[in-house]
Amino acid sequence: MHRTKVRIVEDALDANNTIARANRDDFDHHDVTVLNLMSAPGAGKTTLLERALGEPLEGVRVGVLEGDVQGSYDADRLAALHLPVTQLNTDPGFGGECHLDANMVRSALPSLPLGEIDLLVIENVGNLVCPAEFRLGEDARAMVCSVTEGEDKPLKYPLMFRSCELVLINKLDLLPHLQVDLDRLLYNLDAVNPGVRRLLVSALTGDGIDELRQWLHELATGRARAGV
Amino acid sequence: MHRTKVRIVEDALDANNTIARANRDDFDHHDVTVLNLMSAPGAGKTTLLERALGEPLEGVRVGVLEGDVQGSYDADRLAALHLPVTQLNTDPGFGGECHLDANMVRSALPSLPLGEIDLLVIENVGNLVCPAEFRLGEDARAMVCSVTEGEDKPLKYPLMFRSCELVLINKLDLLPHLQVDLDRLLYNLDAVNPGVRRLLVSALTGDGIDELRQWLHELATGRARAGV
Repeated sequence: MHRTKVRIVEDALDANNTIARANRDDFDHHDVTVLNLMSAPGAGKTTLLERALGEPLEGVRVGVLEGDVQGSYDADRLAALHLPVTQLNTDPGFGGECHLDANMVRSALPSLPLGEIDLLVIENVGNLVCPAEFRLGEDARAMVCSVTEGEDKPLKYPLMFRSCELVLINKLDLLPHLQVDLDRLLYNLDAVNPGVRRLLVSALTGDGIDELRQWLHELATGRARAGV
Repeated sequence: MHRTKVRIVEDALDANNTIARANRDDFDHHDVTVLNLMSAPGAGKTTLLERALGEPLEGVRVGVLEGDVQGSYDADRLAALHLPVTQLNTDPGFGGECHLDANMVRSALPSLPLGEIDLLVIENVGNLVCPAEFRLGEDARAMVCSVTEGEDKPLKYPLMFRSCELVLINKLDLLPHLQVDLDRLLYNLDAVNPGVRRLLVSALTGDGIDELRQWLHELATGRARAGV
């Protein structure tokens, strides 16, 4: 029974990869670079996007696909930035999927203005486990880890930290008020994904936001793809 | 195909409930009260347990079942409290389950000293979606929501907030440093689970820990079961 379950899961991930490749072909056809942005709930994905995309990225038209179990709270926030934002809810699936998969993204493709954007940011459901297992057809993956979550998160959720090309260490402004050792957090990050690109950021103070904007710009113009 | 998926999920949840009832029978047989403790990653479940269980609960012998994708970091911390702690990892399942289910807990039963404890706290995997969907055979559910996660979490993860008898609002000490409106968070909590018991706590300062200890004591001695 255990083997059967493993087999079902492997089949599901195979099927997902097939659809992810189809998504990727469609994105490539429209010359759209796609970023899969992940984190735990409340780590600050949306606020970071508000800060990073508040001003246009030079020569890069950005769109956002918002993944949530229910509601459109984040999409409503980002729509205020006058970017094209598409909401994708996972609760029609069943009780509510804890992650986006390639098929959900595929179902959203007709609603995405692919001809009018250069960079699509997909904000995944807040979760450090399953989103890392499902490719969506993205060019790159980034994750947000808030310092408030503690130093041990890379060790406890290694697949997530390993699968990303960029790790944003967020809420840096709170560090003086926490019993959290940033060096230990970065040490643990290097233990699971040695040398991965990381940015220390604060959506509140704006620290690191210029660097994030530069990374997004380079990603969209082809200089930061494939983890470079 | 969509219907098929829904059917598979319904069958899986039915099967889970059957095993959860068997777990519950075993817990009842040993007169052990069981609490399922859930939260997002890094909300502070383990630190709260360290604070709340650092001193013995009068007349209540406590054991802990630690659920994690990988590793035993939290179990190692709690073992320092000289409580019986059993580690349950979800990664043998496949790439790593994002939640505990009744069958995983069942597989851990032989390792649990049920005859020597009165209260078993099951610390679930850090995730605000799937843990709420899988009953483990518990008497009560509690969740931890850190104020650092923002006011909107009850609205975005309503099933989790709805399925708990107690909501611990944690990291209260950080509130002065956040742009988070506690009243709005509590308003949103009441929107999805009106009047649910809640405690404002800080594992750092100890605020609310006595009340949490009292709640645990009443749960174990039968006065706080079933959401009373």
